[in-house]
Amino acid sequence: MIADCLAYLESKRASIVGALAAIAPASEEARDPIERVREFCGRGKMIRGSLVFLGAAACGGASAGVDLAGAAAAMELFQAGLLAHDDIMDRDETRRGAPTIHARYAAELRGSMAAGDSERVGPDDYAHVGEALGICLGDFCYFEAYAALSRAMAPSPRLGEALSLCSKVLGEVAVAQMADVRWGAGAVEPTEAQILAMYRGKTAHYSFSLPLAIGALCGEGAGLVGPFYEFGERLGILFQIRDDELGLFGPTAAIGKEQGSDLREGKKTLFRARLLAAAPDSERERLAALFGGGVEARPEDFAYIRAASERLGVARSIGEMARSAEAEALGILRSLAALGSEIRPVLEGLVDYVTRRDR
Amino acid sequence: MIADCLAYLESKRASIVGALAAIAPASEEARDPIERVREFCGRGKMIRGSLVFLGAAACGGASAGVDLAGAAAAMELFQAGLLAHDDIMDRDETRRGAPTIHARYAAELRGSMAAGDSERVGPDDYAHVGEALGICLGDFCYFEAYAALSRAMAPSPRLGEALSLCSKVLGEVAVAQMADVRWGAGAVEPTEAQILAMYRGKTAHYSFSLPLAIGALCGEGAGLVGPFYEFGERLGILFQIRDDELGLFGPTAAIGKEQGSDLREGKKTLFRARLLAAAPDSERERLAALFGGGVEARPEDFAYIRAASERLGVARSIGEMARSAEAEALGILRSLAALGSEIRPVLEGLVDYVTRRDR
Repeated sequence: MIADCLAYLESKRASIVGALAAIAPASEEARDPIERVREFCGRGKMIRGSLVFLGAAACGGASAGVDLAGAAAAMELFQAGLLAHDDIMDRDETRRGAPTIHARYAAELRGSMAAGDSERVGPDDYAHVGEALGICLGDFCYFEAYAALSRAMAPSPRLGEALSLCSKVLGEVAVAQMADVRWGAGAVEPTEAQILAMYRGKTAHYSFSLPLAIGALCGEGAGLVGPFYEFGERLGILFQIRDDELGLFGPTAAIGKEQGSDLREGKKTLFRARLLAAAPDSERERLAALFGGGVEARPEDFAYIRAASERLGVARSIGEMARSAEAEALGILRSLAALGSEIRPVLEGLVDYVTRRDR
Repeated sequence: MIADCLAYLESKRASIVGALAAIAPASEEARDPIERVREFCGRGKMIRGSLVFLGAAACGGASAGVDLAGAAAAMELFQAGLLAHDDIMDRDETRRGAPTIHARYAAELRGSMAAGDSERVGPDDYAHVGEALGICLGDFCYFEAYAALSRAMAPSPRLGEALSLCSKVLGEVAVAQMADVRWGAGAVEPTEAQILAMYRGKTAHYSFSLPLAIGALCGEGAGLVGPFYEFGERLGILFQIRDDELGLFGPTAAIGKEQGSDLREGKKTLFRARLLAAAPDSERERLAALFGGGVEARPEDFAYIRAASERLGVARSIGEMARSAEAEALGILRSLAALGSEIRPVLEGLVDYVTRRDR
C-alpha cells in the first residue's frame, strides 16, 4: 500500500512542475527569483503539493474552474519560503543535494567580486549579503504562494476559507520554529507537552492537515476539512516520531538526516525528553551530555542510547504512542464512509509510509 | 492642507491600535510574538493603515460587514514583517526609537544566558539566534497580516481581489529589496530606470497605492483601484525624491534619517545616479568616492555636493521631475469627479505632505 501511495503522489509531480513553470514573472526583475524558486522546488519530492490532489480526489475532484495544480504549486512555494529561511537560521549550506538558497547567493557574489565588479564588499560580507538575499527570496515565495492560491481558487466561494487556513497554519509554523530556535540555543528546556505542540505546529498541521484540507476546499469537500485536520495531526506525530528515530539511528544516505545529526544539533526531541525523564540520576548526566548538542557521537554511544531507551521503557512508550496515532489515523479514514475505493488505499498507504519510511 | 491630511490620518490611529489589540493569539505560544508585534506597530505612525480608511472614505465608506480597522491592521502587520526583515539585512540596531526586533531578541538571550539558563550558546551566537528569531517574527507578521485581511474582508466579494493585490505588490517589494541589497553590496551599478523601478516597487505601490486600493476594495470603490494605483505611484516618487534629499541633507533629528546617512550606506539613489552622470570626468572620482559608501562626510563635502548638484543641473532636473509627479497626482484627483468635499482636501494634503515633509 505504501507503493500505491507513493505512485499516486509521484503521478502528480509533473503537473505541479507545470504549474510552477506557468507562473509569469511580474517584471523583468522578478525573473531571476522566480527561476531560482522553480529550480529549488523542482529538486523536492513535492509531497505537500501532491497531497492537495489527494485531498481533492477524496471528495470527487476539484470544483469547476479551480486549478488544482496551481493550488498544489502554492503549497510548494510556501515550503520553499520556509526552507529558504530555515536554512539561514540553521546555517545549512546544502539542501536537496545542492547549495542552499543563501549559500548560492553568497557563492555567486563571491564569484562576481572575484571578477572585479565590486566596490566595497569584503569577503566577510558575502555570507551576510547571501543571507539578506535569502530572506528576501523566502518572503517572495510566501507572496507568490498566496498569489498562486488566489489565482487557482479564484472562482471558488471557498477561497477566503482556504487563505485563512493557510495563514493560521503558517502562523503556527512560525511560532513553532521560534520555539525550535530557542530550544536549539539551549535557552529553554521544553516540556513534553511543548515538544508535542511544536511537532503539531511545525509538521502535522502544516505538512499534512493543510494540503489535504486545501485539496478538499478546492473540491466540494468542505466537510472533510475537519477530519483531514485531525488525520493530518496523527500523520504528523507519526512522521515526527519516525524522524526522530532516523535523526538518531538513521542511515547516512537518508536525505537530510545523517546518523546522529539530531545529537550534533542538540535537538529537543520527544525521544530525548522521555529518555532524560526516565533515566536514573546515575545516567542522566551522560545522556544529557550526548544530547546537549555539538557532540560527535561514537558507535558505542549510539549502542548505549539504544540500549538505554529499551531498558528504560522509552522505546516501548514511544512505540505505543505511534501505534495509537496510527490506529486513530486509520479510524478517521474508516469514519469517512464516502471515500472512493481508489482513494482509500492511497490514504491508508500514506499512514503506512509516514510510519515506516526509511528516509 | 498638510495639517488636514495629518489630522485625518492621526484620527484613525486609535482604531488600528484597537484592531491589533483584538487579535487573539492562536495558542499560548503565539502570545509572546503577537505582543512584540503590537508593541512594534504601536511605535509607528501607522500611515499605511490610515490610508486604508482614506481609500474607503473616498468611495463613501466600507461595505456592510467589512472591518476597515482590521484591514488597516493588516497593512501595519505587513509593514512590521518587512521592517523586521529589513533591519536584519541592514544590521540596524534601533528602529522607531527602540531596539530592532532581532536586536531585542539577542539582548534578551544575552540576559538569560547571564542568568545561567544556557547550556551551549556562546556570546558569538547571540546575534545569530536574535536574527533567526527576527526572521521567524517577520514571517509570523506576514501570515497574521493575511489572516487579518481575510477576517476583515470575509463578507466582501472583493476579498480575493484584495489578497491578490497584496500578494502582487508585496512580491514587488521583495524583488525591489533584493535589488537594493545587491546595489548596497556594490555588486551592480543600477541604471536610472532600475532605480525608478525600485522606488515604485519598494515605496510607491506598497506604501501608497496598496493601502488606498485596499480601502477602495473594502468599500464600493473597485473603480478607484486603478486611479489610486496611479496616484500612489506619483506619491511614491515624490516621497522617495524627498527621502533622498533628507537622507543627504536632512536634519539629524529626522526619524531614521541623519545627515549623510545615505552616503554612509552607499545608497544608489536617483540623485547620486544623475549627479555621477552629469559630472565632468574631473569631478566624477571625488563624487563617486563620497557616494561609494562607508564615508563619514564633512560639512564641506555636503556643501560641495549641494553646489555641484546646482551647477550640474541635477537639483533642477530632479525638481522638475517632482513637479511633474505632483501635477500628475493632482490631475488624477481632479479626474475623480465623485470625490466628496471632505476627502478631496485630505488627498490633496497628502500630495503636499509627501512632497514637502521635513522628516
